[in-house]
Amino acid sequence: MGYNVAPLDKLIDEFERLPNIGHKSAQRLAYHILTLPQKRVEEFAEALIKAKKDIHFCKDCCNLTDKELCPVCENEKRDHSVICVVEHPRDVIAMERTQEYEGVYHVLHGAISPLSGIGPEQLHIKELISRVAGGNVSEVIMATNPTVEGEATAVYISKLLKPLGVKVTHLAYGIPVGADLTYADEVTLARALEGRTIL
Amino acid sequence: MGYNVAPLDKLIDEFERLPNIGHKSAQRLAYHILTLPQKRVEEFAEALIKAKKDIHFCKDCCNLTDKELCPVCENEKRDHSVICVVEHPRDVIAMERTQEYEGVYHVLHGAISPLSGIGPEQLHIKELISRVAGGNVSEVIMATNPTVEGEATAVYISKLLKPLGVKVTHLAYGIPVGADLTYADEVTLARALEGRTIL
Repeated sequence: MGYNVAPLDKLIDEFERLPNIGHKSAQRLAYHILTLPQKRVEEFAEALIKAKKDIHFCKDCCNLTDKELCPVCENEKRDHSVICVVEHPRDVIAMERTQEYEGVYHVLHGAISPLSGIGPEQLHIKELISRVAGGNVSEVIMATNPTVEGEATAVYISKLLKPLGVKVTHLAYGIPVGADLTYADEVTLARALEGRTIL
Repeated sequence: MGYNVAPLDKLIDEFERLPNIGHKSAQRLAYHILTLPQKRVEEFAEALIKAKKDIHFCKDCCNLTDKELCPVCENEKRDHSVICVVEHPRDVIAMERTQEYEGVYHVLHGAISPLSGIGPEQLHIKELISRVAGGNVSEVIMATNPTVEGEATAVYISKLLKPLGVKVTHLAYGIPVGADLTYADEVTLARALEGRTIL
C-alpha cells in the first residue's frame, strides 16, 4: 500500500500476523480500532499484556492458569488418580462441558509432528511421566485428537507409561451422536463396528 | 464458559468485540497470543495504543493522518481544485491504486443511513461545504459507494453544493472490466446502456 500513515500500517501489520487474518480483514480490524473510544483501545491493549503476563502453566497439569494450580487440580473433590491427557487447553474446556469427567487433566500443548518439527521433548510429556511415576495414579486416559499426530502421540506416551504399571485407556472411536451414517467416513465406520457394544 | 481463567476470558471477550470475529475465532486468537513471546505481545499492544493516539483527521480532507495534513493534501503537485468525495479512508487507498487521479479527496466517514441512525450531521459534510465555499474548487466528484445509502448521500451533498456554483460529477456506472455480461445484474446493465459511449 505505502499510502497509509505509519501507525496505521503498523497496526494492520500486527493484525495480519494473527492466524487466519488476511490483509483485508487486518485492514478492517485496524480501521475499527480507530473508531473506538481511546479508553476501549487501552482496555484491549491491557487485556493483551495482562493475559500474557499473568497466565502460565499449572504446576501439576500444565493447563493454563493465573494461580499456582488450575481450578481442576486445586479442586479436592476431583479424582486425582485418573489423568486425562489432552493436546490443548481448549480440549479441557470441551471435556469439562460434558460434566461427566471427574478426574484431572494433563495438557501436552501439542502433538508429536515431525513435519512441523515438533518432537516429544517440546511437549509436556516428561511432566506427565513424573506425575505417574510419583504414584497414586490408577488410570491415564489418552484423549489426544483422532489425527495421525494425535494417535502417534498417544501410542508414544502409552509405551512410556506401561512399564510404570498404570492402566492406559483411550477415548472410544465411533459415530458422532446425531450424525447420519450416510455421511460417516469409512474409517470412522470401521472403528465404530470394531468397537460395537451389546445393547 | 466460566472455566477459563479470568485474564484469558477477558482477552477472548476483547477479540470477540471486534467485527466479524465469533467466539471460536476469538478463542483461537487469544490462545495464539499466549504462545507469542512477551515482546511481541507488547508490540501489538503498543501498536493499538499508538495508532489510536497518533492518528486523527487531516485538517483539510478528514482522511486519517498522523500529521496536520494527509500526504495527498500536503502534496503541492496534486490539483487542489478537484475534490473526490469518498465514504471511507479505504476508498482513498482504492482510488490511489489507480494512479490516475491527480486531485484531492474529502472523506465523509460513512454514508447517510437512517436505519443505522446515521444522519448528515454525523458525517464530515459541513467541512466539505466550507472547503467549496472557500473558493478555488472547480469540480467535486462524488465517489460514494453504489449502494442506496451512498447514492442518497451523493444526492444530498450535490443539492448543498450546486448553489455554490461548483461542477458536481459522479463516477460512471457500468460493467466492471473483465466481468461477464451473463452475470451482470440488470440494474448495472441498464446503467451501462444508459451511459454508453461512442467507440
